[in-house]
Amino acid sequence: MATLADIGISAGINLLSAFTFLFAFAMLRLQPFNDRIYFPKWYLKGIRSSPTNSRSFVKKFVNLDFGTYIRFLNWMPAALHMPEPELIDHAGLDSAVYIRIYVLGFKIFAPITLLAFMVLVPINWTGKTLEAPAAKDLTFSNIDKLSISNIPFGSKRFWVHIGMSYVFSAWTCYSLYKEYRIIAAMRLRFLASERRRPDQFTVLVRNVPPDPDESVSEHIEHFFCVNHPDHYLMHQVVYNANMLASIVAKKKQLQNWYVYYHNKYERDPSKRPTTRTGMMGIMGAKVDAIDHYTALIEKLSEQEAQERENIMNDPDAIIPAAFVSFKTRWGAAVCAQTQQTSNPTVWLTEWAPEPRDVYWENLAIPYFDLNIRRLLTSVSMFFLTFFFMIPIAFVQSLANIEAIEKVLPFLKPIIEKPSVKSVIQGFMPGLALKIFLALLPKMLMTMSKMEGYSSLSGLERKSASKYYLFVLVNVFLGSIITGTAFQQLEQLINQPSTEFTKTVGSTIPMKATFFITYIMLDGWAGIAGEILRLSSLISFHLKNTFLVKTEQDRQNAMDPGSLEFATSEPRIQLYFMLGHVYAPVTPLLLPFIVVFFAFSYMVFRHQIINVYNQQYESGATFWPDVHRRVIIGLIISQILLAGLLSTRGANKSTLVLIAQPVLTIWFHLYCKGRFESAFVRFPLEDAMVKDTLERAVEPNLNLRLYLQDAFVHPVFKADEFEKPVIIDDEEENPLIQTKRTCRSSKPESENEAASAGSC
Amino acid sequence: MATLADIGISAGINLLSAFTFLFAFAMLRLQPFNDRIYFPKWYLKGIRSSPTNSRSFVKKFVNLDFGTYIRFLNWMPAALHMPEPELIDHAGLDSAVYIRIYVLGFKIFAPITLLAFMVLVPINWTGKTLEAPAAKDLTFSNIDKLSISNIPFGSKRFWVHIGMSYVFSAWTCYSLYKEYRIIAAMRLRFLASERRRPDQFTVLVRNVPPDPDESVSEHIEHFFCVNHPDHYLMHQVVYNANMLASIVAKKKQLQNWYVYYHNKYERDPSKRPTTRTGMMGIMGAKVDAIDHYTALIEKLSEQEAQERENIMNDPDAIIPAAFVSFKTRWGAAVCAQTQQTSNPTVWLTEWAPEPRDVYWENLAIPYFDLNIRRLLTSVSMFFLTFFFMIPIAFVQSLANIEAIEKVLPFLKPIIEKPSVKSVIQGFMPGLALKIFLALLPKMLMTMSKMEGYSSLSGLERKSASKYYLFVLVNVFLGSIITGTAFQQLEQLINQPSTEFTKTVGSTIPMKATFFITYIMLDGWAGIAGEILRLSSLISFHLKNTFLVKTEQDRQNAMDPGSLEFATSEPRIQLYFMLGHVYAPVTPLLLPFIVVFFAFSYMVFRHQIINVYNQQYESGATFWPDVHRRVIIGLIISQILLAGLLSTRGANKSTLVLIAQPVLTIWFHLYCKGRFESAFVRFPLEDAMVKDTLERAVEPNLNLRLYLQDAFVHPVFKADEFEKPVIIDDEEENPLIQTKRTCRSSKPESENEAASAGSC
Repeated sequence: MATLADIGISAGINLLSAFTFLFAFAMLRLQPFNDRIYFPKWYLKGIRSSPTNSRSFVKKFVNLDFGTYIRFLNWMPAALHMPEPELIDHAGLDSAVYIRIYVLGFKIFAPITLLAFMVLVPINWTGKTLEAPAAKDLTFSNIDKLSISNIPFGSKRFWVHIGMSYVFSAWTCYSLYKEYRIIAAMRLRFLASERRRPDQFTVLVRNVPPDPDESVSEHIEHFFCVNHPDHYLMHQVVYNANMLASIVAKKKQLQNWYVYYHNKYERDPSKRPTTRTGMMGIMGAKVDAIDHYTALIEKLSEQEAQERENIMNDPDAIIPAAFVSFKTRWGAAVCAQTQQTSNPTVWLTEWAPEPRDVYWENLAIPYFDLNIRRLLTSVSMFFLTFFFMIPIAFVQSLANIEAIEKVLPFLKPIIEKPSVKSVIQGFMPGLALKIFLALLPKMLMTMSKMEGYSSLSGLERKSASKYYLFVLVNVFLGSIITGTAFQQLEQLINQPSTEFTKTVGSTIPMKATFFITYIMLDGWAGIAGEILRLSSLISFHLKNTFLVKTEQDRQNAMDPGSLEFATSEPRIQLYFMLGHVYAPVTPLLLPFIVVFFAFSYMVFRHQIINVYNQQYESGATFWPDVHRRVIIGLIISQILLAGLLSTRGANKSTLVLIAQPVLTIWFHLYCKGRFESAFVRFPLEDAMVKDTLERAVEPNLNLRLYLQDAFVHPVFKADEFEKPVIIDDEEENPLIQTKRTCRSSKPESENEAASAGSC
Repeated sequence: MATLADIGISAGINLLSAFTFLFAFAMLRLQPFNDRIYFPKWYLKGIRSSPTNSRSFVKKFVNLDFGTYIRFLNWMPAALHMPEPELIDHAGLDSAVYIRIYVLGFKIFAPITLLAFMVLVPINWTGKTLEAPAAKDLTFSNIDKLSISNIPFGSKRFWVHIGMSYVFSAWTCYSLYKEYRIIAAMRLRFLASERRRPDQFTVLVRNVPPDPDESVSEHIEHFFCVNHPDHYLMHQVVYNANMLASIVAKKKQLQNWYVYYHNKYERDPSKRPTTRTGMMGIMGAKVDAIDHYTALIEKLSEQEAQERENIMNDPDAIIPAAFVSFKTRWGAAVCAQTQQTSNPTVWLTEWAPEPRDVYWENLAIPYFDLNIRRLLTSVSMFFLTFFFMIPIAFVQSLANIEAIEKVLPFLKPIIEKPSVKSVIQGFMPGLALKIFLALLPKMLMTMSKMEGYSSLSGLERKSASKYYLFVLVNVFLGSIITGTAFQQLEQLINQPSTEFTKTVGSTIPMKATFFITYIMLDGWAGIAGEILRLSSLISFHLKNTFLVKTEQDRQNAMDPGSLEFATSEPRIQLYFMLGHVYAPVTPLLLPFIVVFFAFSYMVFRHQIINVYNQQYESGATFWPDVHRRVIIGLIISQILLAGLLSTRGANKSTLVLIAQPVLTIWFHLYCKGRFESAFVRFPLEDAMVKDTLERAVEPNLNLRLYLQDAFVHPVFKADEFEKPVIIDDEEENPLIQTKRTCRSSKPESENEAASAGSC
C-alpha cells in the first residue's frame, strides 16, 4: 500500500506533465500559424481573421513578443471572464450547461471536503486501530490512518460516519435539486428567447402507414388536413438519400486527392505526379494521378446526377416519414404531444429535432423492427459489458509470436531478434485491449444508431448511457474487485446479495491510493492534454501543407471539434461516484476530485469559448441523464457504505443506512416529476405566448416560405441542386384543391368546420 | 405426502360442498321472496318487478312449481346464452372484459393441460427414480411419480421439460397478445360507439396555482381562454363538500333508525319504543326513541343547511381543481394530453373520469404532498407485506387466557372451564389473523386513497396491485417456504440470489398436493359460495323486515354488489401463477385450474347478468394491469423452473432457461408499446370522427346546457338543493365580458385571434 510519500511523487509527476502540457499549449497558441487551431470558433464566427495576412514574414509564423510568454497562464482568467448569458449566446446552451456539470461537482464536493477534513479526518486519525499493539503485523500507511480503516471494530465512532454520510447525501441532493431547477429555468428562458426556428413549428411524423390509393405525400396531407384542420400548414417528405450521401462523400474524398496532386504538380511542374490504381495507392498499375482522379470524379459526378434523377422520379425514394409544419407553435406542440390514431404504432409524432440535429438514416425504421433492434442492442450491450474480455483474450492468443511466424513466415528472421521479440511480447497483449478501448465509443455509437434514434443529440445521449454502464462495471467495479467483469457477474450471482456489497465495500478503503493516482493521471494530466489539441494540431498542419489552396479551404481544414458528450460525460460521472464513495471512507481523496472539477471547468470553458463548434443545439436536453447518473452514483456509494460498515462490526447501523437509498430514490422521482417535463415536452402556454407575440410583431409573415426548405437532407442543400418540387406539383392536383380551403380560410361556424374537416 | 386417494377424498369433500352451495342457490333463487337478492340487476334496470305483487299469499314467498327444482342447474346454460355485444350493453364493458380474464385462463391452460398430459406425464411416469432400489427409503406417492421428481438426477429427459416450458411460454404469450389486441379493439369500439357523455368533453384540472387577484374560478376561466382560445367552453369548480357529505351520511343513518322505531311502534302501538342515549344504544339515559331520533335528525338538518350555506358563500370552499369542458372532444383530447405550463406541478390536466367514478375527497391534494404520500405508502406497503405477522403475534400474545383473566377478572370462572378454555386457546390465535385478513382489502383501499388517486377505478386498480403483492409474497411464497414473509426476506438477502430460487424451486414439487387442495377449497367451493350471496341474503331480509316501508325502500335495501376488482383479480392471478409454475413440474395440478377457470367463468357470467351493478364504467382500463401481472407470474415460473432444474443436475440447461425471462420481458415491452396507449390516451383521429359526426347529426346541440351540472358532488345532486350559481354570477362581471368573444365568435383572421387570445 502506498504511503503519503508515494502519492506525493505520483502527484509531482502528474503535475509536472500537466504543467508541461499547459506550457506547451501556452507557447503554441501564441504562434500565429497555430491561431486557427486554438481559436477556430472565432474564425467560424467570422470575428477573427488570419493574423498571417498583415504582418512581416517571420511574424506570420512565430510570435516574437516575449512578454506574452511570461503570462502563459493568463488564458485562465480570460476563460472565466465571459459572463454566462454571453457564453450561452456565443457557444450555445448545450455547451454552457455542459460546463455547469463541473461547477456542480465543485459545488457538491468543496463543502463536503471541508466538512470531511474538519470532522472525519480527526476522528479517523485518533482511531488508533492500526497503531495498536495487536495490529503490529499489519502494513499500513499514513493514508490509512486518515481513513475509516483506523476505526476499531464495532466502535461507536462509526455513527459519525453514518451521520456524515447522511449530511453528504442531503447536501448532494440539495445541490442537485437547485441545479436542476436552475437549468430547467435556463432551458425555458433559452427556448422562450430563441429566434424563430423551423423546428418550433414542425413535428416529425414517422411510420406513416402505406395507402393503396395515395402517395405518401398525399396521405400525410389528407391526414393532417382532417385531424388538425385549423393548424396544419404544410409538410416536407423525406427522401431516402443515403445512397446519394455516400456518393457525395466519396466524391469529396476524391476531390481532396485531386487537389493534393494538383498542388504537388503546381509546386514542381517538372514532374507529373503518379499514383497506383490498386489498394490504397500502393499496388496496381502506375497512372498519371491528376488524370486518374479527374476521370474518377467525372464518373462519380455522373453517378450522382443519375442518383438524384432516381430520387426525384422514383416514388419509392420517399420514405414513410415527414416533417409536418403547423401554422402556430401551439399547433405543433399539440401534435407532438398527442396520439394521432388508435393504433399507436403508426403516425408517431414527436417534436422535430433541429434540422442540423436530424439523423437522416434512421427515419424509415418500422415499429416492429425498432423493437427487435432494441432487444438485440440490449442483449449485445450486456455481452459487451460483461464478456468483452473473451474476444480480446482470443485475439491476444492469436497475436503471439508463434502465430505470427506461422502466418507470415517471411517475418521470422526479424521477429526472432531478442529486442524485437521482447517488444512484441510486452506490447501485443496490451495492444488488442488498447485498440478495443479506443474503438469502444465508436462501437457504442454504432449500436445506438442501430437502435434507431432519429436525432444526433439522442444518439449521443444513448451512447453516453451505454458508456456509463461500461465505465461503471469495468473501470469502477473492475478496479475494486480484481478480475474480469464476467467473474464479477459470477460472484454477484453466486454470493448472497449482501455478501457482494460487503466484499466490494470492504475493498474500497484499500483502493483509495489507486484511485488517487488514477484521478491525477486521467483527470489532471488528461485534461491538460485536451487543451493542447495535439491531433488537431498535426492534422491541420498536414492539411494546410497539402490540400489548402484558398482561404475557404483553410476554413474547411480547421477541425474545431466539439464536446464529445457521449464519452466525456460518463467519465465525469466516474469522478462524481468516486467522490461519493470515498467521502465517508477516505476523505483524503476528495481534494484531488475538487481540483479536477475546478481545473476541468477552466479548461472546458476556454475550449467552448475559443475552440469547439457544436454540430447542433439541443437546449440542454441531456440534463435529466446527468442528474440521474449522479443519483445512481450516490445510491451505489450509499449501498457500498452499508456493506463496508457491516463488515466492521456496525451491523445495527445497516438498518439506518438502508433508509438512505430509499429516500434518494424518492428524491429522484420527485425531481423527475418536478423538472423532467421541461426537457421533453413543450408547454402550451409558452407556445401561445410566442405565437401571440409573433403575430403582433410580424402580422404578414409568410411562414410557408420560411419553412419551405428547412428540413431537406443536407446532401440536397450542399450543392446548388434544386430539391424535387413535389409540393408544387401537388398544388395543381384537383384532389388537393379542397385543402386550400381548410388551410387559408378559417371555417365561419362549427357546421362548416365539420364539412371542411372532411376535406 | 398425500396420495392420489387423499386428493380424491379432498376433492370429494370440496365437490360435495360446492354442489351443496349450488343446490342451495338453486333452491333459494326460485323462491319469489328472494327474487331481489338473486336478480337485483334486472330490478335496477326496471325490467323486472316484484313477483310478490301478483300472486297468492303462499306463492308470494315459496315457489311451489316443483318442476323448476329438478332443473336446478339450468342457470348455467342461461348464463352462457347472452351474446357478448348484448352483455356489454347490459353490464358494461368492465364486467364483460373482467369475465374474459377467466376465458383467457381457460384458453391458456386447456391446451397446456392436454399437451402436458400427452408429453410430460408419460415421460415423468417412466422416469423410475422413485421406484429404484436406491430410493426405497423415500416416501413417495403416485402423484410424485407423475411429477418431475421421478426423473433421475442429471437425466437428458429434462430437455423435454425445458422444451415444453418454452412451448408453454410461447403459447401463453401468443394468447396474451391476441387477447390484448381483442380487448384494445373492444375498448376502442366501445368508446367510439358510446353515446355522448360529459367526460368526453371534459378534462380534470388539478393544482390550479393560487392567484392574488382572482378567484379560482376566474383564474381557470382566463387561463383556458388564453391557452385554448378556439376550444374552451366552460368549467365547473369543485367544492370541498367532504364535511357536508359526512353530515348527510350521518343523517341518513339516523333516518334508518327513526324508520326502524317508527315501524316497531306501528306494529305494536301499545308501547312506545325506547332507546338509550349512550354508546350504541346500550348505556345512558332511557328516552323515547322516536322523539329522540326526530330531534337528532332536526339538529343535523340544521347543521346541513348551515354547511351548505357555508360552502356557497365561503371562497375557501372552492378547491384548486376544476372540471374544464371544451367545445369538441378534440379540444378535450388535446388538453388532456398536453402540458399546460412550464411548471409541471401546476395546471395538471388529465382525462376526466366518468362523473360516477370521481373520488371527490382527493381532488385538492398539492403536488408535493402527493409525492410524500406515495413515499409513505410504499414504505408502509413494504412493512405490511413483510412484517404483518409482528403486530398479529403481539395481539395473539395479549389475547391469551392469562391476559384476559388479568384485565377482566370477573370472567375468570367462565374461562377456567375446560371446554371454554380449549375453545379460546384453539380459536384466539387464529382469530387475530382472520380479522386481519378480512380487513386487509379495506386497509389496502385506505392506503390507495391516501396516495391521492382521483377516480374510483384508479383506486381499485392500485389496491389490486397492492393485494397482488401481498398474495404473491404471503400466499404463494409463504406456502412454499414455510416461515413468515420476514424470514423469507432474510433468506433472500442472506443467501446467494441463485440459492433462493434453487430453494424455492426445489420445494415446488413437494407442495403440489397442498395447492391442489387449496384450489379446490378456495377456487371451487369458494366460487360456489359466491353465487349463494349468503351475506346479502341475510342483510336484505333483515332490512326488509325492519326498515322497508315503500317500494322505493325495498329498492334501496337491495345490495346488488359489484365485481370486487381490487380483491378478486389478484386471486385469479394466483391461479395463473400456479398454473404456470406447475405446468412443467406437476402437470396433475393443471386440470384443477382449468376447472376453476371454466366454473368461475360461468358463475361470474351469471352474476354480472343477474346481480352485480357496477358503480362506474372505466372501459376496461384495468386490462394492462391484468396483462402485466400474468406476465409477472410467467416470469416467476420461468425463474423457479431454472432454479429447480439446477438442483437436479441439469446445470447446463440454466443458460437456455435464462433467455426465457429476457424474451418474456421484451414481449411485455412490445405489447405495452403496441396496445397500452389505447387504455391511457384518446387518439385525436377518433375524437375528430365523433365530433364531425355529431356536428352533422345535431348541428344545434347546446353543449353548455348539456354539461351544466355534469360534474357536481353527489351530495348536491341527491337533494333538490340548487348548486351555487357561481358561473352565472360571473357573467355579469365586466372583466369576463371579453371571454364571450373568444367563446362564441371565432376570430376572423389570425391577427384578431392574437388580440382575442389575450382576453
